[in-house]
Amino acid sequence: MKIIRIEHFNAAHRLNNPAWSIEKNKQVFGKCNNDNFHGHNYQLEVHLEGPIDPETGYVMDMKLLSDIIRDEIIERFDHRNLNLDCPEFKGVNPSAENIARICWELLRDKIDASLQLTLRLWETPRNGVEYSGE
Amino acid sequence: MKIIRIEHFNAAHRLNNPAWSIEKNKQVFGKCNNDNFHGHNYQLEVHLEGPIDPETGYVMDMKLLSDIIRDEIIERFDHRNLNLDCPEFKGVNPSAENIARICWELLRDKIDASLQLTLRLWETPRNGVEYSGE
Amino acid sequence: MKIIRIEHFNAAHRLNNPAWSIEKNKQVFGKCNNDNFHGHNYQLEVHLEGPIDPETGYVMDMKLLSDIIRDEIIERFDHRNLNLDCPEFKGVNPSAENIARICWELLRDKIDASLQLTLRLWETPRNGVEYSGE
Amino acid sequence: MKIIRIEHFNAAHRLNNPAWSIEKNKQVFGKCNNDNFHGHNYQLEVHLEGPIDPETGYVMDMKLLSDIIRDEIIERFDHRNLNLDCPEFKGVNPSAENIARICWELLRDKIDASLQLTLRLWETPRNGVEYSGE
Amino acid sequence: MKIIRIEHFNAAHRLNNPAWSIEKNKQVFGKCNNDNFHGHNYQLEVHLEGPIDPETGYVMDMKLLSDIIRDEIIERFDHRNLNLDCPEFKGVNPSAENIARICWELLRDKIDASLQLTLRLWETPRNGVEYSGE
Amino acid sequence: MKIIRIEHFNAAHRLNNPAWSIEKNKQVFGKCNNDNFHGHNYQLEVHLEGPIDPETGYVMDMKLLSDIIRDEIIERFDHRNLNLDCPEFKGVNPSAENIARICWELLRDKIDASLQLTLRLWETPRNGVEYSGE
Repeated sequence: MKIIRIEHFNAAHRLNNPAWSIEKNKQVFGKCNNDNFHGHNYQLEVHLEGPIDPETGYVMDMKLLSDIIRDEIIERFDHRNLNLDCPEFKGVNPSAENIARICWELLRDKIDASLQLTLRLWETPRNGVEYSGE
Repeated sequence: MKIIRIEHFNAAHRLNNPAWSIEKNKQVFGKCNNDNFHGHNYQLEVHLEGPIDPETGYVMDMKLLSDIIRDEIIERFDHRNLNLDCPEFKGVNPSAENIARICWELLRDKIDASLQLTLRLWETPRNGVEYSGE
Repeated sequence: MKIIRIEHFNAAHRLNNPAWSIEKNKQVFGKCNNDNFHGHNYQLEVHLEGPIDPETGYVMDMKLLSDIIRDEIIERFDHRNLNLDCPEFKGVNPSAENIARICWELLRDKIDASLQLTLRLWETPRNGVEYSGE
Repeated sequence: MKIIRIEHFNAAHRLNNPAWSIEKNKQVFGKCNNDNFHGHNYQLEVHLEGPIDPETGYVMDMKLLSDIIRDEIIERFDHRNLNLDCPEFKGVNPSAENIARICWELLRDKIDASLQLTLRLWETPRNGVEYSGE
Repeated sequence: MKIIRIEHFNAAHRLNNPAWSIEKNKQVFGKCNNDNFHGHNYQLEVHLEGPIDPETGYVMDMKLLSDIIRDEIIERFDHRNLNLDCPEFKGVNPSAENIARICWELLRDKIDASLQLTLRLWETPRNGVEYSGE
Repeated sequence: MKIIRIEHFNAAHRLNNPAWSIEKNKQVFGKCNNDNFHGHNYQLEVHLEGPIDPETGYVMDMKLLSDIIRDEIIERFDHRNLNLDCPEFKGVNPSAENIARICWELLRDKIDASLQLTLRLWETPRNGVEYSGE
């Protein structure tokens, strides 16, 4: 049995590889490389798989899950600049793939290890990524 | 090849474990334990996996699938109180997980056994569960 | 300039006119008359129209508006039975139309009278109502 | 007859009134005042009202309308920082209300004056504004 | 008080003005002029405005409204070719604007004249029209 | 890591098996067999699974992926009649399942073979299929 909880955060970011020239960054990342950043409403879907607890009928209490997502993800990244404000992205290009990977690591530590964790992250309604920790 | 059909039903329910005290039920289930019930628009996604029939180009006729869902699920649960009106939930706490499990069992009996069945059930646009029969 | 804020609440209800016979209620309200209630995820859109405050660039602070909606509507009706738990529906059939009217009256008292208030309430993704106070 | 065209742009912004102290800005704008900006996927709905052209059956060719929106709005604001990159917001706090007003002025000049123009702009799926030029 | 009901139909169509040359049709209607048609999932929103009936709490029974839409619109246009199968479009270019106008006329005749009728028709999730009968 | 890109195309089609009688086609395919075609807004979700490139933070550049989808799928099928205009459906019944299979084959050739490809295709908001190449 899998449960799915959906949350949102709004952040600024910029794609850039500091090992590359300005020209190569412009060429590869296009307008996502804009010097002064741009931003998105990120939609995060958290999927947890495990057995139903016979006493509650729950895999996990959605309220507890929502609280963990708020404490670990929303408080950290909402209304922030991922490149400048968030040490988690020190030396990490904040592509949707990397944001999903870092969110996964932050949540993995706080959720019962017996539950399998998958994240789906939408950067726009047309662009998403999914990560299950390898 | 997988096919997906989406249907809806609207129902009242209350989460409660009769083996627990009133206090423990309030503490665990919070406002979902409200004595006089509350309700949801449930969205049910039915996924079926199997080969394409070369004569029709179908895995299964969506119209037939929709009819089975209507007969087995919508007629049973739509505009009902899951706790009081539905014998399927006698002794079963109607959490989203348990509703998905019972819908899965009701559909499994009526759909060709060669087709693999998965259900995704949304209780709200932000809370969902998925079940494939273990 | 108009601003729009969207919120949600989940509730049980039953349509019934106590002045009518059981048969007439069944005939007019159909499955919405189910004795033991059914329920919905209600989506409430609050529209406010007024001038932009030149100091803030706001018609009204969305955070304040969201707090008012939470205090006046969500706290009252979320995870409740509108017929049994909510004195606002004493003697009022909780049709979407009447729910919208009562929400409008509850909000009207708490929002600056210079702002024009309209509500749109969705009972299901396909059935909605809109009310502007006449 | 009204026609409606929906487009999107993604931008960073920060709410701030330079006439106020840092403390007052933090108090009024909260996390929207974050020094290093945050961002959104903006959804812009363009409504035009006018007669049907009997030769085409159109109020206006949606392709032409989409091209105008792209040239005037998307090219200007997509993947930009509204505060730093866009002279249109020199001295203007980029609240959703002000963004809608400025988009309206940019489009008004380029669309046949006989067509009535209204914009609806969503900053998030839950926060929107609407503007008709007074 | 306004009520809103949403329904869908799927149809093929082609935009063409027989008074024009092939070249002019190609130039004005582009790929919408494709000789062998193309198609859409049309979403129709029916808005009715009127007083609440004090006995039912309804402006109009949504079930009755849905039945009228099914009989007048869905049965006529769903899974049809608007140009070839539907006499309503004899000599009428089936642009979204004209489809909305014809749906409005078909419904206007069947709905209590005291209720004000507005239609919103979406040809795609990004292209819509709205019509109130002038 | 998986990435997901969503695109759309609008097409006319008709379900028909030329090896069957007119009666059997009407009986099996119902209104989808309409002689003069009908149509849909198809939503195509392209899922690609592979490792993150450490230099870009991308599995694959979404802009490149979007360009490939446009060249291989949208240019071929958008605003076309799948039965009459598209040689890919010569002798193939254009059911959603077969459309997904053919889109998968067209894309598979153009995308790095190390990336696993899955398509989800929605014919209507309620009817979808998913294909991973067996």
